[in-house]
Formats: sequence, structure tokens, C-alpha cells
Amino acid sequence: MLDTEAALAAAEAKAGVVPGAAAEAIAGACQAERFDLEALGREGRAAANPVPALVKALTAELPDEAGRFVHWGATSQDVMDTAAMLVAQRTLRIVDRELGSVVASCAGLAERHRATPMAGRTLLQQALPITFGFKASLWLAGVAEARERLAGVELAAQLGGAAGTLASLGSQGLTVLALFAEQLDLAEPTLPSHTVRGRVADLGSGLALTAGALEKVALDVTLLSQTEVGELAESSEESDAAHRAEPAAGAKRRGGSSTLPHKRNPVGSVRAIACARRVRGEASILLAAMAQEHERAAGAWHAEWEALAGALAYTGGAAAAVREVLDGLEVRAARMRENLELTGGLVLAEPVSIALRERLGRSDAHRLIEAAARRALAAGRPFRDELLDDEEIRSELSEAEIDRALDVDRHASEAAALVERALRRYRERR
Amino acid sequence: MLDTEAALAAAEAKAGVVPGAAAEAIAGACQAERFDLEALGREGRAAANPVPALVKALTAELPDEAGRFVHWGATSQDVMDTAAMLVAQRTLRIVDRELGSVVASCAGLAERHRATPMAGRTLLQQALPITFGFKASLWLAGVAEARERLAGVELAAQLGGAAGTLASLGSQGLTVLALFAEQLDLAEPTLPSHTVRGRVADLGSGLALTAGALEKVALDVTLLSQTEVGELAESSEESDAAHRAEPAAGAKRRGGSSTLPHKRNPVGSVRAIACARRVRGEASILLAAMAQEHERAAGAWHAEWEALAGALAYTGGAAAAVREVLDGLEVRAARMRENLELTGGLVLAEPVSIALRERLGRSDAHRLIEAAARRALAAGRPFRDELLDDEEIRSELSEAEIDRALDVDRHASEAAALVERALRRYRERR
Amino acid sequence: MLDTEAALAAAEAKAGVVPGAAAEAIAGACQAERFDLEALGREGRAAANPVPALVKALTAELPDEAGRFVHWGATSQDVMDTAAMLVAQRTLRIVDRELGSVVASCAGLAERHRATPMAGRTLLQQALPITFGFKASLWLAGVAEARERLAGVELAAQLGGAAGTLASLGSQGLTVLALFAEQLDLAEPTLPSHTVRGRVADLGSGLALTAGALEKVALDVTLLSQTEVGELAESSEESDAAHRAEPAAGAKRRGGSSTLPHKRNPVGSVRAIACARRVRGEASILLAAMAQEHERAAGAWHAEWEALAGALAYTGGAAAAVREVLDGLEVRAARMRENLELTGGLVLAEPVSIALRERLGRSDAHRLIEAAARRALAAGRPFRDELLDDEEIRSELSEAEIDRALDVDRHASEAAALVERALRRYRERR
Amino acid sequence: MLDTEAALAAAEAKAGVVPGAAAEAIAGACQAERFDLEALGREGRAAANPVPALVKALTAELPDEAGRFVHWGATSQDVMDTAAMLVAQRTLRIVDRELGSVVASCAGLAERHRATPMAGRTLLQQALPITFGFKASLWLAGVAEARERLAGVELAAQLGGAAGTLASLGSQGLTVLALFAEQLDLAEPTLPSHTVRGRVADLGSGLALTAGALEKVALDVTLLSQTEVGELAESSEESDAAHRAEPAAGAKRRGGSSTLPHKRNPVGSVRAIACARRVRGEASILLAAMAQEHERAAGAWHAEWEALAGALAYTGGAAAAVREVLDGLEVRAARMRENLELTGGLVLAEPVSIALRERLGRSDAHRLIEAAARRALAAGRPFRDELLDDEEIRSELSEAEIDRALDVDRHASEAAALVERALRRYRERR
Repeated sequence: MLDTEAALAAAEAKAGVVPGAAAEAIAGACQAERFDLEALGREGRAAANPVPALVKALTAELPDEAGRFVHWGATSQDVMDTAAMLVAQRTLRIVDRELGSVVASCAGLAERHRATPMAGRTLLQQALPITFGFKASLWLAGVAEARERLAGVELAAQLGGAAGTLASLGSQGLTVLALFAEQLDLAEPTLPSHTVRGRVADLGSGLALTAGALEKVALDVTLLSQTEVGELAESSEESDAAHRAEPAAGAKRRGGSSTLPHKRNPVGSVRAIACARRVRGEASILLAAMAQEHERAAGAWHAEWEALAGALAYTGGAAAAVREVLDGLEVRAARMRENLELTGGLVLAEPVSIALRERLGRSDAHRLIEAAARRALAAGRPFRDELLDDEEIRSELSEAEIDRALDVDRHASEAAALVERALRRYRERR
Repeated sequence: MLDTEAALAAAEAKAGVVPGAAAEAIAGACQAERFDLEALGREGRAAANPVPALVKALTAELPDEAGRFVHWGATSQDVMDTAAMLVAQRTLRIVDRELGSVVASCAGLAERHRATPMAGRTLLQQALPITFGFKASLWLAGVAEARERLAGVELAAQLGGAAGTLASLGSQGLTVLALFAEQLDLAEPTLPSHTVRGRVADLGSGLALTAGALEKVALDVTLLSQTEVGELAESSEESDAAHRAEPAAGAKRRGGSSTLPHKRNPVGSVRAIACARRVRGEASILLAAMAQEHERAAGAWHAEWEALAGALAYTGGAAAAVREVLDGLEVRAARMRENLELTGGLVLAEPVSIALRERLGRSDAHRLIEAAARRALAAGRPFRDELLDDEEIRSELSEAEIDRALDVDRHASEAAALVERALRRYRERR
Repeated sequence: MLDTEAALAAAEAKAGVVPGAAAEAIAGACQAERFDLEALGREGRAAANPVPALVKALTAELPDEAGRFVHWGATSQDVMDTAAMLVAQRTLRIVDRELGSVVASCAGLAERHRATPMAGRTLLQQALPITFGFKASLWLAGVAEARERLAGVELAAQLGGAAGTLASLGSQGLTVLALFAEQLDLAEPTLPSHTVRGRVADLGSGLALTAGALEKVALDVTLLSQTEVGELAESSEESDAAHRAEPAAGAKRRGGSSTLPHKRNPVGSVRAIACARRVRGEASILLAAMAQEHERAAGAWHAEWEALAGALAYTGGAAAAVREVLDGLEVRAARMRENLELTGGLVLAEPVSIALRERLGRSDAHRLIEAAARRALAAGRPFRDELLDDEEIRSELSEAEIDRALDVDRHASEAAALVERALRRYRERR
Repeated sequence: MLDTEAALAAAEAKAGVVPGAAAEAIAGACQAERFDLEALGREGRAAANPVPALVKALTAELPDEAGRFVHWGATSQDVMDTAAMLVAQRTLRIVDRELGSVVASCAGLAERHRATPMAGRTLLQQALPITFGFKASLWLAGVAEARERLAGVELAAQLGGAAGTLASLGSQGLTVLALFAEQLDLAEPTLPSHTVRGRVADLGSGLALTAGALEKVALDVTLLSQTEVGELAESSEESDAAHRAEPAAGAKRRGGSSTLPHKRNPVGSVRAIACARRVRGEASILLAAMAQEHERAAGAWHAEWEALAGALAYTGGAAAAVREVLDGLEVRAARMRENLELTGGLVLAEPVSIALRERLGRSDAHRLIEAAARRALAAGRPFRDELLDDEEIRSELSEAEIDRALDVDRHASEAAALVERALRRYRERR
């Protein structure tokens, strides 16, 4: 808010609306440590916003010849809204850095594991082989698109005066608006938007989309880290703070539990998921706040403040947590391959069916494969054995052809072209 | 959390599970000022909750013969969940006090203004006369029901141990649970509920219902305070904090604006509305968190913490703001009566129609009244004059009968029985 | 709506407000098949609700001496709100029956599997043994509490007339209200509640809580049905409709996939989860609709209609889906036991630690067990072997004591008392 | 879904994957009237989606040489997701047309009423004069920005096959994907996005933003249509459907009430507000559905279907309702001017203060004006009289200067430059 008041005075000085000396004095007094936050909060109750109290306190810090130009031509909402955009601007820089690190990690995983086979799972059931690199390229696509979407949200300055018409700045209104926005590196709006809240709601939605893309990664990590799956694990590296001589009664290692020593809790993912859920709550408040009355809302605007702050902070929390997860991620390629064998080869029934249908048509191919699969399931026998024993199938496919169809690596590699596409796009946009 | 650890040790001492001296020592060490909140928060990241760090720090405060019994048989979630219920218990006492004051104010307004006529408005259009006491009795009903609903939410202790089975307390598990709950004046649950979150979600909903009932009052106050309506005004009494010698550049009076001296902003109502919107956001997080995995959730539980704290705090904020609004509410009975005249008597067309239909049947009565109303609207003439000039109507209704039908006070008083009912119920339940 | 109009006329006939013959004629005409729903919807746009068009159409079905008493003293919202409660009343009966079946299934599972050991899982990691009966008793508790909560929501009649004051029924207003409510087996409200929407929002919350409790069951089933976990499976029994001679190109079996024959998709759980998510969306609309203007809202009320209908329908959908899931649930006790061995005995580290701490104190016990666990993990060796080889541990615990501590069945059975409690409560409340 | 299957076959024929004759036969059979929707819905329960049943029914319509190529290489989600985008594509065309009409109406109002003074209102209190054209230009900005935002949402085809890797189409996968997207005029995605749901959530958010911008207009119309404000009125023109000989018992006119003849209910705005609230509920479901498991979600995806359909439909409803409102909007310029006089001139205190501060500095100017305002309020006397009687003020400002400051038209016209900017931007973007 102080930066906003200082920039306003500076813009007005440039436009010749207030004296340059006054603007400089105002800028000099706009230092947070001079003000009593708690008192401003308390006094702000009387106006339902803290700006009048701040303006009063700021004016009191200045000689009258400067103090009289504090907040010149502005209304409380101009300061609150612009300050919120400054908070967003600064937070989004941090969030973007975290997201940059997340997408780089995803790209690295996609690259390194483009040929690491693992089960593709639908409705939580193994479906067909994919590669871990393919999964990572989907994470990459999701987070990279959200990051672009977020980067596209325009943060604009707010300046309208008491009724949003810039009336008290007379003919200089639009000039001051342009200079004010420039001063703060914010976009210049076509109109003041005291009750046209699309930008704020859009920022909230952009944050929720980002948090959702991050949550997808975190959810996959928690699922792949299950004791029974064991294909990924978050790092268990001890953090410095927790490193103590006395192990007796506390968490010693990241994700560890002193009473359950075998556990490797996916703590980063858990934090990311919790953050994402909170972002959605905040974004819903921002969307619901779009219908604002007349030229200043009676409550809906006021509900935005903490919602926006929360949405920014928790998106940052989700991004930082996922970055931490990916930085230390342990990828267990051997376990991925082992898990692919849990169905005795049935996870590759589709490729065999495809090989067969070129000879027999889909319906016959399908009938034969399904029958063999059922026999394998019922007998607990490898699918390959059932295929080799089936005369109808063998009259169409040789053992070599069957083995080719059942080759996990060959099948998994079908996703290679998609991984390439994702990486190419990533490299272009970086 | 410290109170929870102390109560757990005390309960276990009573049950003979831990030594009495250890429980006493633990209780003695459970003083918030001994602990470094920021460090606990930082260390808590490694476990995705702060309890392990707290247990470690608490143990470090104690000699080994007591320290070894800290957190005996409990899991982190037992402490977090029980502590959250203690926060709820304490906050709900304050919220209930504020709600008690709100319903008392509503009852007082209902009583004093049971015969104060004002326009009843539907879809924001004047419809028929009611009394302000009737409106206040609706506010009363809404807030009183929400208050009862909130008072009915059972706050239960949580104690289940690592997998929720109380296994590490052996045969003493249920005894300790009962004593633990008693110690904290919380309900004893049938089962631990680490992932059965109905109670938490129900508390969230109860808070959202309460905030919604309060918001209804606040919304009516903002609408009735409009410059063009002017039937209510929030107090403009200066708060002590804002009372300063130098009026130059700041908020001087509650709801006032130094640049727009005629305004009486409904600042309390605005704050209540903003708070209610936030409560809904938090409640939606709590409802969405009900689907928790297995015996401890991977994220959904963690999202509850701030949501519950926020829902409690903002419900309190809404209640305090509405209490403040009603305490200082200025009721302008004269303006209410003036506004009833804005339609030139048409707001009483229905009672005339009712008087007439007893003679002519609904359809004819309606036809005549509607025609007269249209003529009155078109000519900008009082409805009474049109009625008196209409021969068909006059052949059924005398001037006295027409005036009786157009008597605002008589009509408004029809609501008296309802006001009585609401007040009776209020007095019974108090 | 027709049932509401008929009941209103009947109540008014009993109260002597309208002729008995008129009420009978109205009742006779209130048959849905007589009316053109689409036309009512289209005409309803002009009034922003369908009641005026319905009243007009109903009146047109009657001779004037009856038609003139249609909708006597009522306002559109009286009919919409009461009709919504009738829809709720009827739907809740079905929902309650489904919930009754769900809790009975849960109780049966709790009973049968009270001693069937399985892994308790926290943050999706195996933590300690529980029994499947214990898990089922948690499901039972969650759904049974939600069912009681829902049964406790009071469905009330609505009758207030144009401004909610019952004015047009004169002194008979409260009598008619009581008879009207009685006629429809709905509760009689203290006051009309055109803009006091706590009951509707509370019903919405009750539905969301119910859906959430059901979703918890469905989520656990999807997780336990994973290929890598395999402890539960939904029924694959073919439904009649899908039973066809030609298997070629379609879904043949419940949860099956013709191209992925090994899959047993948890389709019922998936549908339940999808339904629950929709209920929450609807409930959020109902909570947000509590702040209604004056004596009839301008939009918020209108948003309730489909939200309530949707919340009812989707809660029913979730309940029916979970009932279907539990009816055909395949419980694989052997796989549960196998999975408990995945950690080489580490899942029982805590019981060993407890056995040891009675001799050595928590801190030493913990240190020794943790070291043994780490050695076991590092070497991929059974935990039991590490314990037996550890001299410090062996100086305190005999092989028999160690084996007792590592006994899955003994540990799992600790939850028996809790299962009993849950079943006892279920039997009492049934 | 049928269009999707037809386009898939056509794309595959172009790519040489399936025979051209088969694709033609499939296209010929893809006619909705051939299929039993209810049966498809019923059978779809077994797979938790209707596609397998549809594929089976479609195949049954075809000779085997074509039937065997139905749904070639696709998975159910490919069809559901692409079909949803086709629904969106078609609906968005209608929505965009309605939005085009809304912004044109806003532009017309901004143009015609750029100099029509009315009160600017903040927190529902009159603040300063604006013009109705300025308000309309804010509506214009809000809806036009939302429309652009919505037009920018990219609708993409979905094609990934069973695990999202396009594996069953072998080396032709990406070629088919490109042709398939082209066939349907949808965007070609970088990767299939079975569980990367940013686009769907973004579409939901875009719809919620649009609905919110429309709701702002509707809210202002309801407030300005209040009996006590009376500055706007929705059209009361009778709709054809409601035009009947028998007026007795029904809504006769748009927004009218037969029992309350003076009412002009803002029914279009009310419907728009109700629609917007529903869109938000649906959008919250879509945002919450972003975290989808692995390669196909177990519930979250299924929850999207009706949410997206609802969000599209209700955004259309809101747009159509606001279009109808603006088309028939009655603007009462005289009443706007009258209402500006309700404060006895105080609504212009700020311009007088500004005129004075150039002579005296803000603090003295403010002190004098505030004192005069208080005297005026206390005495119920015109502000002008107080100003003219105040010696200190008169020593600085002449009567002409005071009258100039109090000139509503002059002040209101300050907004002219902003109206121009909004119109210019509108014309550029049209």
C-alpha cells in the first residue's frame, strides 16, 4: 500500500498535478517500519478497510506541504487493489521460479525415463504398459500449460477515485493513470475496475488451475509410492533442522516415522495436495465475488482480500512442495518392471489382439484372446503359455510373433513419439 | 496441542498406564511460552505435521522418567484433531455469546417494532406492508436456529494410535479414551475417526449455516440503508481509536468518509458479508475433505486445519460485526412510512382486492382492481382516488370500507401473530 | 406443485376458508398428466417461476366456483418451496433405504471380518495391521452417522402469502398453516421462511455429508482394488442388459473391458465418487443462497431449485452405487495377509518396540528397534531375523516374546473391542 | 459421440488405417435417431460410461466388414472427451452470439447515455455523480473481456487409446490424431490429456468468469429497478405465450403480478443471477476434478460430464437473460436526476472541496466543507445554502464558482473520456 501511495505521488508529480518535492517527501515516508500494523488494522474496522487509517498515519509523518498531497485523487479501493496486484506481481515471480524448476524436473524425468516401462493404469487398474517418461511428459504438459496460463494473466493498476470516474483528477486523470501503471510495472486498464472484477477472478482461476496441475503430479507420486506399488519414493534425506543427537521422541527423517521405521511418507506430495485444496477454496470465493454492486461493492470486494492472498500463498506452497518432491524423487525402474508382471502377461493382451486382428478381423481376434485371458486368469497361469497352447491362435501367430506382441519394451516405446513432442514443445517455450 | 498432551498423560495416569508423577511433570511442561512456534512449524514440514516436532521439544523439556511417557500410545493425528476441537470449543463459546447478543437484539427489535409498518419487498420491489418487527423476527428465527444447530454439533476427542485401533494401549485403550475425553470436556467417540470426518465437516457446515443466517441480516441492513431507502442506518458513533485532533486525512467516524460527508456506510454489515463469504469457502474445503484414504489421508486431512480455523474465526467475525450493527442500529420509522407511500397506495392493492372478492369472486374483483391500478399508474394519481371514482367498485365497497382496506397499519398488523410466535419460541429456548 | 395446491385447498376447506366442494374439485384436477410441462416452463419465464402459469392452467381446468379458490392466499414461493420439500420427502425415503442397506452391509462385513488381518495404511503407506472388519466398522460409523444426521433434517411446509405474513388469510392464517403442514406430513414452521433458508441449506449440507461418507467407502474400495493391492474386487457379474450372444465390440461384463480382459474396474465406486463430487457442487450453491434479500430473493432463491434436486438425486446415486458395490464385494483375505508380509515384518515394528519399552524405556527401545529395522531394510532381510540376531534386544526379549510381538493376528485383534462398539451402536440405533 | 466415431473413422481412412468404405458406412450409421438413449444409459452403468454400449450398438448397425473398424484404436474417454468438446463448440457459438448482443446493447447505452447523470454509489450509498453511460461502459468492459477470454479457450480433440499413448495405432497415431482434430475443427493437442485436465477446467473457469460478468449487469439492474430507486425497469411487454383472454388467475405480463399490479419484477435479471450461481457450482466441480489418477481417473473425470454441460447451458441462460433485459431496458433519466437531489447537494461535496483546496490546501478545505455538510445534514437544508452562508468559504469561492462546483452535469461529464475509451476499445475488438 505504501509503494502504491508513493507511486501515485510520483506519477502525479510527473503529470504536474502535485509538486515534485511533495512526491519525493511522500516516497521517503513510505517505509513500512514506520507504521503500526496492528493499529492500522484496528482503526480500519471503522471504514471497513485500512486505507483511510494508513493515509492518516502517512500524512502525519509529513510536513503539511507534502502531507496535503498524499493519496491525491485516489479512493481507498485504488490503493487496496493496486497493492494486491503488487503482492501478486512479487509472489508470481517466486511461483514462476518454482514452476520453472518443476517443469525442468519433469522434462528431465521424461528424457531419462522415456524408455523405462511401467504400467499405465486406468481406474487404478493396470491397463497397458507405458513408460515413466511418458507419465512425466504428461506432468510436464500439465504444469507447463498452467504456468503459461498464469503468466498470461495481466496485472493492472487501479485508479478511479471516489466513483471510479477519475473525476477529481480532472483532465489529467488518464495521464496520471498511465504514469501510475508504468511506475509500478503494471498494465494500464481501459477503465478503472472497482466493480468489474474479471481480472481478479481470472487470476484466482489461473492459480487454481496451476495448483490443480501440481496436485495431479503429487497424487500420482502418492499412489506410486504406496507400499504395494513402490515405484517412486520421495527423498528421505534428513533436513538440517531435524538433525539432532537425541532421537528419542520425534520425527527424525523426512517422511519417516520413528515408530513405523519402514514408512517413507510422501510428505511433499501430501503438502502439495493440501495446498491445492485450499487454493480451490480461495478461488471459489473470488469467482463468487464477481457480482459487485454499483461503483463499489458492499462485502464482495472485501471478501477478495484474503482469498487472493491465500490463493497466491498456497499456490506457491504447492509449487515449492512439488519442486522438492521431484528434486529428490527416487525412481525404482526395477519395481516398475516387476509390477508389470503382476498380471502374468495380461497387461499385454491388447497388443496380441492387435497382432491377431490383422489376420482374423477384430471380432474373432478378440474372441480368441479373451478366452485365452480367461483361462489364464482362472488357472493362474502365464498368458504366454495359454497363447502358445491355443491352436487357433497358433495357426495365425508364430511363437516369435507372440513374443514380439508380449514384449513390454517394444510396446512401451510406442509412447516415444509423444514424449518427444512434449519435450520439443517444452524446449521451444522455455 | 500442549493441553492435549497434558490431558492424555493425565488420563493415562488415572488409568494406571503411565506414572502419576510423569503425568504431573508433563502437565507442568506444557506451557506454550516454552516453545518456539516458528521452529516447530519449520521442523513440521518433514513430517507434514507439527506434532512430531512438538513431542520432541516437549520431551526435551522433561527428565527421562517423565519424557518417556510423553504422547504415550498416541499418533500425531490424535493430537492435531483433539487440539482442533479444543480450539473449536473455546471459539464456539465466544461465537455463541455473540450470537446470543444478536438474537437478543433481534428479539428487542421485533418487540419494539411489531407495529412499525414498512414495505415488504419481493425481488427488491415493494410488495405489501409488513412491520419492521416482523422482519426482525425473521432475522431472529434464522440466527436462533443456526445457533441451536451449531450448539448441537458434538465436539469429540480423538485417540486411536498409529492405525486408529488403540492397539498400543492394549486393553486399556477404551478406558484411556473415556478419561481423555472427560478430561477435556469433549465427547467420547464410538470409534476413533481419523478418516471418518463427518463431525468436522458437520462443524464446518454448521458454521457456514450460521454465517449465512448472519449475512441475511447484514444484507437487509445494507439494502435498507441505501441513500434512496434510508430506513435503517448503522451507528456513526466515533470509535475511541479514531478520535483524533487532526481530522485532515483519514477516516474520522464509523462508516463515514471525509470526502463524502453525507455517507453513512454500513461498515459492520459489509464486514459481516465479507466474513460469511470466507466461511463458505472454508466449509467447502471441509466438505471436500471427507473422502480420506484408508486409516490416514494423504492431503485431505491436512487441508482441514486452516479451513476449520478460518471457518471458526470468520464466523466469529460475522457474529461480532452483526452484533455491533444491531447494537447501534438507527431505525427510521418515519422514513419507513414515507416509503410505503411511494406507490400512491398500490402497495395495498391486494387488501382491496381481498375485500372485493368476497362480494364479486376473485376473477371480477381482480379485474376491477387491476384496471384501477393501471389507471392510477398511468395517471400518476393516488390509487384511492381511482377506487373512489370507479362505479363498479363503489357499488360493492363504501368509502369507509375502501379506507379500511387501504389502512397500512391495519394491514401491517396482520403479522403480529407471527411476531408473537417467534418471540415466544425465542423466550422458550433462551 | 399440484399436490401442494390440492393440500392447500383441503387445509383451507377444513379451516372453513374455502368451500369443501371447491377443495374437492381442485384435488380432482391436480393430476400431472393434464398439464403441458413444456408450456408451463416456457410461460414461467415471464414470472421467473412456473407457479403463475400452473395456477392459470389449473384454474382453467375448473369451473369458476372452484377455480376461484385455487392457490387461495398463497404466493408462488409457497408452492415452489413446499413442492421442493415433497420431492425431498419422497427422495429421502429412497435414499434412506439405500443407506440402510449400505450400513447393513458394512455391519455384516465388520462382523464377518473382525479377525481378518489386513494392513492399516496411513498416507497410503502400510502402517500397522488392522482387520478388515475394523475398516468396515469405520465405514459403518461414517455412513450411519450421516444417515442419522440426514434423518434429523426437518422438512417443513411453506405458507406465507405475498409478503410472508399470511395476511391474506386474515385470522385463519396460522390455522391453515398447521392444517396444510399436517396434510402433507411436513413440519409446521414457526414462521414462513421465504428468505430464511437455514432448512434448505441444512438439507443440502446433510446430503453433502452423506455423499462424503459414501465417497470414503468408495475411495477405499478403489484403492484396495488396485492391481497391486488386490484385496477387494467389485462384482463382475454380468448385468442382464449386457448379456448378449455377440461379445465382439462392447462392454460385456460389469467393470470389465473387452480389450483389457484382466481388468476388474471398480465401476460402482467410480460412480459413487462422481456423484459425491456433484452433490458438493450443489450443496455449495445452497449454502451460498442463504443471504436472500428482504421478503423474497432476486435470484438466490431461484438458484436453489435445481441445486436441491441435484443434491437429492446424486446422493441417491452415490448411495445406490455403494450399496451395489458392497452387495457384490469380493473380499480376498489371503491377499490381505500376503500384503502384510511385503515389509518383511516391519509393519509390526511398533508392537516389538512396545514390548521392549516396558523393559528399557521408550528411548532405548526405540533406538534398538529403529536400528534393527534399518538393517533389515538395507539388507532386504526379514525383520524377525534381525531382531533375533540383535544381542541387546535378545537380552530383554525371548524368541517367543518376539514372535508374540510379531504375531499379525494377535495385533490385528486389538481392534476387536472397537468393532464390537461399532456393531453395538449400530444394533441399538437400527 | 456419433460425430466423434464418424470423424475418427474418416480420419483413419484418410491415414490408410481403415478402409474408406468402412469409414463411409460408419458415417452413414452415425445417426442419433437410430439409437435408444435410455438403453445406452442403462447399459453404460456396467462400464461407468456409455461408450462401450454405444460402440456395441453402432457395430450392430453395420455389416462386419465395416463394424469391425468402429472405434478403431480409441478408448471410451477419447469419445467422451471429444464429444464434450463438440458440445462446447456448438454451445459456445450460441453463447458468443448472445454475448455479442449484450456488448452491443451496452455500447449503445454507453453511447446514448454518456451524458445522462446518475448517482455513483459505493457500498450502496450515493457517492458522487456519474453518468449512466459510464456505468454501461463498465458493463461493456466486463462482458467484452469475459467474451474474449472465453473465445480464447482452445477446444482440443482427444485421442490416446487405452493408456493414452496412441499405441494401438502404431506409427500412424500422430497422423490420425491430426486428421481427426482437423475433421472436427478442434485443436490438435500436443499430447492426449486423459488426466491432464487444464483445458476442461479452464473452459469451466472461462464460463464462470462470463457468468460473473453478466451477473454484475443483472445485479445492477435489480438494484436500479427497486421501487425506491426506479431508475431502470425491465420491459413489461407481454410475451405471446402469456397473452390470453382470461386474465383471472395467472401472470399476465412479463415481470408483472396480478395481485401486486404496481410491481415490475426484474425477472430477466433474476434468471441471469440464478444461472450465474449455478455456473459457479459447476465450475468448482471442474476445478476440483483436475487431480486425476494415473492414466484415467476413478471418479473425478466422470464428475466432469454434467458439470461441463451445466456450465455451458447456464452460461447460455445467463447471457440470453441479460440480452433480453438490455433489449427491453427502460432508462428513466429524469428519475436518475431526481435521485441525485436526495442528498440536498451533498453528493457534490467533493467537487466543492476540490475547488477550495486549490486555494486553501486540502486540510483547511476539507475542514470547512465537512463543517458545512454537517450543518446542512443537521438542518435538512440545501448544501448550497450552507456554502453561500459560510464566510470563510465565500472569501475564497464566488457564488458562480460554487454553482459551477455543484453542477451535476459538469461533474458527471468527467467520465466522458472513459466512456470514449471503452467504446473505442469495443469498436476495435468487434
